[in-house]
Amino acid sequence: MDRQKQIAAAQEKVLPELVLKNAKIVNVFTGEILSGDVAITDGYIVGVGRYRGQTERDVDGRYIVPGFVDAHLHIESSMVMPDVYAMEALRHGTTTIITDPHEIVNVSGAEALRDILHAAACSPLNYYVMLPSCVPATPFEHAGAVMTAADLLHFKENSHVLGLGEMMNAVGVINGDPVVLDKLAAFDDKIIDGHAPGLTGHALQAYVGSGILTDHESVTFEEVLEKLRCGMAVLVREGSASRNLEAIVKGLVDRKLYSSRLAFCTDDKHLADIRREGTVSSNIRQAIALGMPPIEAIRMATINAAQIYRLPHIGAVACGYRADIVVLDDLDTVKIHEVYKDGAAMSAMKMPEPMHYSEKLMNSVHIAPLSEETFVIPPQKEYDVIGLVPHQILTEKIHMTQEELNAGLQDGTVCKIAVIERHHATGCHACAYLKGYGLRKGAVGTTVAHDSHNIIVVGTNDADMRAAVEELVHIKGGYTIVSDGAVVDSLPLPLGGLMSALPAEEFIPRLDAIIRKAYAVGVKENIDPFITLSFTALPVLPAIRITDQGLFDAENFRFLT
Amino acid sequence: MDRQKQIAAAQEKVLPELVLKNAKIVNVFTGEILSGDVAITDGYIVGVGRYRGQTERDVDGRYIVPGFVDAHLHIESSMVMPDVYAMEALRHGTTTIITDPHEIVNVSGAEALRDILHAAACSPLNYYVMLPSCVPATPFEHAGAVMTAADLLHFKENSHVLGLGEMMNAVGVINGDPVVLDKLAAFDDKIIDGHAPGLTGHALQAYVGSGILTDHESVTFEEVLEKLRCGMAVLVREGSASRNLEAIVKGLVDRKLYSSRLAFCTDDKHLADIRREGTVSSNIRQAIALGMPPIEAIRMATINAAQIYRLPHIGAVACGYRADIVVLDDLDTVKIHEVYKDGAAMSAMKMPEPMHYSEKLMNSVHIAPLSEETFVIPPQKEYDVIGLVPHQILTEKIHMTQEELNAGLQDGTVCKIAVIERHHATGCHACAYLKGYGLRKGAVGTTVAHDSHNIIVVGTNDADMRAAVEELVHIKGGYTIVSDGAVVDSLPLPLGGLMSALPAEEFIPRLDAIIRKAYAVGVKENIDPFITLSFTALPVLPAIRITDQGLFDAENFRFLT
Repeated sequence: MDRQKQIAAAQEKVLPELVLKNAKIVNVFTGEILSGDVAITDGYIVGVGRYRGQTERDVDGRYIVPGFVDAHLHIESSMVMPDVYAMEALRHGTTTIITDPHEIVNVSGAEALRDILHAAACSPLNYYVMLPSCVPATPFEHAGAVMTAADLLHFKENSHVLGLGEMMNAVGVINGDPVVLDKLAAFDDKIIDGHAPGLTGHALQAYVGSGILTDHESVTFEEVLEKLRCGMAVLVREGSASRNLEAIVKGLVDRKLYSSRLAFCTDDKHLADIRREGTVSSNIRQAIALGMPPIEAIRMATINAAQIYRLPHIGAVACGYRADIVVLDDLDTVKIHEVYKDGAAMSAMKMPEPMHYSEKLMNSVHIAPLSEETFVIPPQKEYDVIGLVPHQILTEKIHMTQEELNAGLQDGTVCKIAVIERHHATGCHACAYLKGYGLRKGAVGTTVAHDSHNIIVVGTNDADMRAAVEELVHIKGGYTIVSDGAVVDSLPLPLGGLMSALPAEEFIPRLDAIIRKAYAVGVKENIDPFITLSFTALPVLPAIRITDQGLFDAENFRFLT
Repeated sequence: MDRQKQIAAAQEKVLPELVLKNAKIVNVFTGEILSGDVAITDGYIVGVGRYRGQTERDVDGRYIVPGFVDAHLHIESSMVMPDVYAMEALRHGTTTIITDPHEIVNVSGAEALRDILHAAACSPLNYYVMLPSCVPATPFEHAGAVMTAADLLHFKENSHVLGLGEMMNAVGVINGDPVVLDKLAAFDDKIIDGHAPGLTGHALQAYVGSGILTDHESVTFEEVLEKLRCGMAVLVREGSASRNLEAIVKGLVDRKLYSSRLAFCTDDKHLADIRREGTVSSNIRQAIALGMPPIEAIRMATINAAQIYRLPHIGAVACGYRADIVVLDDLDTVKIHEVYKDGAAMSAMKMPEPMHYSEKLMNSVHIAPLSEETFVIPPQKEYDVIGLVPHQILTEKIHMTQEELNAGLQDGTVCKIAVIERHHATGCHACAYLKGYGLRKGAVGTTVAHDSHNIIVVGTNDADMRAAVEELVHIKGGYTIVSDGAVVDSLPLPLGGLMSALPAEEFIPRLDAIIRKAYAVGVKENIDPFITLSFTALPVLPAIRITDQGLFDAENFRFLT
């Protein structure tokens, strides 16, 4: 901010560059709606009141609200690159994002962080980064990198870094694991995000008392209330998979509890969902539809998030704030008329030049040579089988005899699943049986595999599984479907094996197409062919998983093979 | 905070050191009152809920609220040293103070700041410092020091420093004075306190847009509302002289506007007033008496202030927060039962050892030799006379002919007033006439003289004025009354000529005594003998003042002599 320009324009000593005239301005500080103009110079709001400007634009009595803040998200879940994500988010009124590049850093470590921080600096958004606290996410798998407290400290002073990303290792915290506490101590003077699903009572007190500020994993109002009482800031999540908003907002509305410690986030949201319903704009709309006063919903989406994350010039339409502004047709449907970022109209904004990412990120799939043994499962008396649950990412542990297994393989209810380490070509791999995926022929593979992002491949036969893995190596990561030795379809995700280089308009139909083709080779309709698959390797989710180190009992935290 | 201890005690793996049992706990986050215990270890709250402890203290259903935060004050106004002030504030539930050592730094510059920051580090309070932005306060007087942006930057990283103190030079800000903007730029990433009495419209937009966050000078609700709308944090002041709370709180209550951007402060409060009515505790009580919901008043006095000043472990009774706790008998009269600072009961706390201040601060009165000329006012056709206004610190400009003057001198309505530079023995001095003080004999002098704290002496004759000045030099600063060449009474204020070294119990009667004696030598009852005097040299207050550089027209900003 140039103070001289700011001060001169505020007093019309030099006319403000742009004035949005005749607005109903939502004041997030007082909760009022005030008629007036918004004067902008040099990307900042210089005054709110009555103003003349070098350029004047009449908003015809529409509402002006601050640009929205998405308080917690992983861009990787959109499956497009940060610049594509940014333009998409901007269209929907989101001007500030607080991201945790947990996935890509699990692939490429410090190099990924450097690239992401460069992307943040180049972004049209206010793009903030929480440094991933859990790389690797667990000791039960091989990720692409290990990030210690010392490794993270190298990035702490970057102006885009707000603190430490979601501390998923709640067990480590409440047991006082020194490695975990080291990371917390290193970010004592910054924000530390939490991840505390269902944590309650004394354990929650310990978790919060260790210095963790936020949580975005609450699913009930009661959970939110207990966390708020502890002093946590609660981010109400509504993403593609985790839709927690309704239960929480209903409780807030019933209790008329509108705390400044509540904000909105999307966490994981796919691009097609964003295109259809927006990012935080969708949270706002749903909250209002559930009876939350519109100004409270807008506060949650703006100033509350900015204050929780200590962002001083963000989240309000007031002098000295960034001219990040959303013009709305009304406050009920929150229909967006125009978005201004740093005073520039989104409708006139061009797609930024694609960023250049480093070789390590764009070439992240490295496997040891496959062998005849890779997909072989030795005969056993009884088999532990991963059972998928329709519409859920939870799994169930199933026991099968050889006969049951054979029957399942025959009727297509059971197929093979393999996880192959793909970062450092260690050759680590594991293979097991999967029930409920429904593949009738061929193989389906992905390099998106939470949280270590090794290769997961599912197949009815070893040859197609092998061909699918080879295709994933060939396209440098992505999704693939192989049948009878031929590639049915592939969606390359070259950035870390997680994100596409395509623009949004091309990506969405390509993703739709490969999903349709997965159903065509037999994947059951109540299973998301790629997303469900990508969670089968996450050892922190119940009940049974598979990592590159073996079949894993996620309830007793021990390997089964 | 020791995380291992915190985490262990939160889960009773090691019993908390102290548990306050059976309390009604005010939760400032949710606005609830919850029954439970508060567990404390190592000076921090480790848990709220049901707890057993190594020591348990039953609070018998009393209310537990966070220790109070006084969001803006000048300790100098109490006229006692910081350690005496601290113990007095603690008794009244104030556990955190945000101070601006504006007065003492005007006397002794960087050396005063060093001493004050040392006092802050030794204090039982959470003692924060805003670095004085206006030293000297104006170019129309000689202060003891000049503090540039570069001088202030030396202290910026001290852990007790939160930012830049009240920017009184509003005119400099809105005119874009580069020296002023340099100071604002230097504290861009910290808090900048404002001082914007009556500032409104585009000028206020410019002032706030320059990066100034707070204001404590509002006297009407409308003024508060405009400042809140601009994004300012408003500190509602109730001090010894400026009593702004009633008008503002009435407006807040009428409009039900309870913003998280409102806090309480005392600004300037004398020790006797503190002893009688408390510090922030008095603001809370008055607000509740005016109809503010008790929990809102407590929020203003605790978490709101902590959040405005970005103090992460202060302002709430919750895990991870400092165990700064006030136990109240009830929420209506806010009667204090006990105060805990860092988990230690105030009632068992000992007065800290007096701190050693540097020679420069304890020996701050240095004048050039007085001469026959010092108190001579050359004859003029007409005289500009300073007219005191009963019960106010404003003055009025009075014109007097020689005849009127002589009559006034005769009947005791007019006397002489002189200001003598006392920091660097420059010999700068000025003398004029003062109407309305009411002295019948002798002289009254003080080294407390806002904001440059030169010597002010008022007298009916030159000999007693001279004797008073010499006495002030002799006692190294303070208050004095001289009559017929003899000292009637003196109150030494050796710390910078501003603060007494006496404990509270001795100081209050000594101050009472000298004030009584001032009335006995004729000071009018509607004038505060020393405080009113100490403002006659403040050139920013209308209408007419006197500095060491001459009689000053404070409405047209020019010297009259």
